[in-house]
Amino acid sequence: MKAVVESTDDALLGEQLLAEAIAIHEEDREMCHSIGRNGAPLLTGKQGVLTHCNAGGLATSTWGTALAPIYHLHQQGESLNVYADETRPLLQGGRLTAWELSQAGVSVTVLTDSMAGSLLRSGKVGAVIVGADRIAANGDAANKIGTYPLSVLARHHDVPFYVAAPSSTFDLELASGDLIPIEERARDEIACPNGVKIVPDDAKVMNPAFDVTPADLITAIITERGVVMQPNRQKLAEHLGASS
Amino acid sequence: MKAVVESTDDALLGEQLLAEAIAIHEEDREMCHSIGRNGAPLLTGKQGVLTHCNAGGLATSTWGTALAPIYHLHQQGESLNVYADETRPLLQGGRLTAWELSQAGVSVTVLTDSMAGSLLRSGKVGAVIVGADRIAANGDAANKIGTYPLSVLARHHDVPFYVAAPSSTFDLELASGDLIPIEERARDEIACPNGVKIVPDDAKVMNPAFDVTPADLITAIITERGVVMQPNRQKLAEHLGASS
Repeated sequence: MKAVVESTDDALLGEQLLAEAIAIHEEDREMCHSIGRNGAPLLTGKQGVLTHCNAGGLATSTWGTALAPIYHLHQQGESLNVYADETRPLLQGGRLTAWELSQAGVSVTVLTDSMAGSLLRSGKVGAVIVGADRIAANGDAANKIGTYPLSVLARHHDVPFYVAAPSSTFDLELASGDLIPIEERARDEIACPNGVKIVPDDAKVMNPAFDVTPADLITAIITERGVVMQPNRQKLAEHLGASS
Repeated sequence: MKAVVESTDDALLGEQLLAEAIAIHEEDREMCHSIGRNGAPLLTGKQGVLTHCNAGGLATSTWGTALAPIYHLHQQGESLNVYADETRPLLQGGRLTAWELSQAGVSVTVLTDSMAGSLLRSGKVGAVIVGADRIAANGDAANKIGTYPLSVLARHHDVPFYVAAPSSTFDLELASGDLIPIEERARDEIACPNGVKIVPDDAKVMNPAFDVTPADLITAIITERGVVMQPNRQKLAEHLGASS
């Protein structure tokens, strides 16, 4: 966009910016479809799939990232039961993921984040799939708070844990996830959910927006370029270098 | 109480029932103090302790069960940082545990249930302690939904996981926790937190009130009689038979 602004006559600027925006949107849409195609074989035949937060069409274009393989399979006539963590504090799962999946005709069940453990123990979930906000060079992935415990629970129950994200999510300057800064958000998101005060003033709160899932708990990372099983620094360098 | 009603003249009934109620309260108070004394050595010297739901003085008498060792240590001048899961859907941790601990002058920090994973990973928590609603003969323990995943996370991080409950919590008729019935509660606790509708009507919800933690993830069960390390059927039968 900046390049367009700097290289275009003022008279044509509006038109050129619109064309560039449409091209970016189209590229993003194609990227999401590719993630969907690449991830679909990992979810096919699973009875239930658990996801966290919103990594669907409301977060990116059309199909999103973590939800893209689900939409892909749905389009092919394969039906999955999707379980969506509500994702406290901001409830993106209960509000957004549940809305967009049910709009698309995909079966979706909302649960509190604290129910994922017994859900996994029940055997109803054959895979966990989430998005990522930032992935370090070694494959450690930062995502919405509550993602990391799902990776531990998935491993405990021998359920695969997948991260789906465009290759632009990788920050190869960061050697590991410990270097990813974690935003601390406002007290009231915890103390006053939906504007109703529940936590007394004398109590402290913590409110980190993200957590980091170490690469060794990630079964595979799915990008628009393909799938990296048991991701590590070397495999990811090859994957990202391959067609850049 | 029933025995008092059946064996007492109508004229004296009120007085006798009051005396019996006071005796029950006193017995419960003493039981909680004993749990506190028995559990305190397990928590002493820990920097931080994580708990879930409310198993304090608002749930039983005076000190509660899971919070009793914390109150005991606080009374001895030992300060702990208590981390209280908010405990969706009904927020007993954010509303009740945070209130009673801060009233007592104990440092307490509220977090969403989804933050417990990264908190444990941070090394700030030296023990997890929870109550129980029902414990089977083999030591499997039912407690508020969200307890089970904490036991998995505690094991993953090599942090001890303690269950504190009076011996009356044991149901020796139940061979294992799989036989404990789990109440399914109303949709609106998930779909309309604090009366604000967030989940669309087309989406399903699940709302189990409890989950079951298997005995092999429990480091110790603390009762008013003492402590059972690595609980199993035989140790518990001895513990419960010992002074009955």
